[in-house]
Amino acid sequence: MTDTNLIKELFFEDLYIGQKFISTTYTVTEDEIVKFASSYDPQVFHTNPQLAKDTFFKGLAASGWHTASISMRLMVLSFKVKGGLIGAGCDISWPIPTRPNDVLQVETEITGRRESISKPDRGLITIRGLTYNQNREIVQKLKSKIVVLKTIA
Amino acid sequence: MTDTNLIKELFFEDLYIGQKFISTTYTVTEDEIVKFASSYDPQVFHTNPQLAKDTFFKGLAASGWHTASISMRLMVLSFKVKGGLIGAGCDISWPIPTRPNDVLQVETEITGRRESISKPDRGLITIRGLTYNQNREIVQKLKSKIVVLKTIA
Repeated sequence: MTDTNLIKELFFEDLYIGQKFISTTYTVTEDEIVKFASSYDPQVFHTNPQLAKDTFFKGLAASGWHTASISMRLMVLSFKVKGGLIGAGCDISWPIPTRPNDVLQVETEITGRRESISKPDRGLITIRGLTYNQNREIVQKLKSKIVVLKTIA
Repeated sequence: MTDTNLIKELFFEDLYIGQKFISTTYTVTEDEIVKFASSYDPQVFHTNPQLAKDTFFKGLAASGWHTASISMRLMVLSFKVKGGLIGAGCDISWPIPTRPNDVLQVETEITGRRESISKPDRGLITIRGLTYNQNREIVQKLKSKIVVLKTIA
């Protein structure tokens, strides 16, 4: 596991469109899928491997919010901006579900960048986070805007 | 806590625009905020009540993904559609953070409804989920499309 403290904190000036950050990997166990969903998304296709077979997912699938949470961990540990990775919201989609024993990895790309109009000490960047499984299938697409401080702040 | 099995499973024909579903409440403890974020969003403003004071949030704040996950639990337990509540994605925003001891409640409203063009056994509905704290402040806005089966399916 990457130690977040070893990653350089980035400022607005360090970031450019097209820049990519590749995370470490995270193996998702069946136990973790069931445990997360039992707390936060208690539906049978997320909590019961046997009963899940007769559902839309045809087998146990992680909650989308679980995929999102794991992706956030991977993103935070691989892409560190000054003051923290704080988004006020995002668009998110899950083209296919995360399955037991999937190995996830996140690639974060800077897709937009502009100065703040009202606050000269910061800028706004748009990021796209793609979460891949071990077969290079995309299990999550995320688009978000975040505020990043300038070095002169 | 509401037992999800006691809630009637709804079909497409049961749903109409403007229909609302009100969840039970969920109290978010400081311990749960720290535990969730330590696993999935390890940033100091989500994991360390003392150090969080000197950050953007000026105190411990729940990860947005934690607010989303609790909101999903509340939604799933109060709004049950045939086959399960399955979204392929959503727009989500967090106007203000969830704080320790907040009491959250979700109101889900049907804001769109149409027949599926390609599959006559189902329909598509758009939902808006608003998560409130105990002061009736909105901590999360969610918009999503979900597929719901018809009774004739």
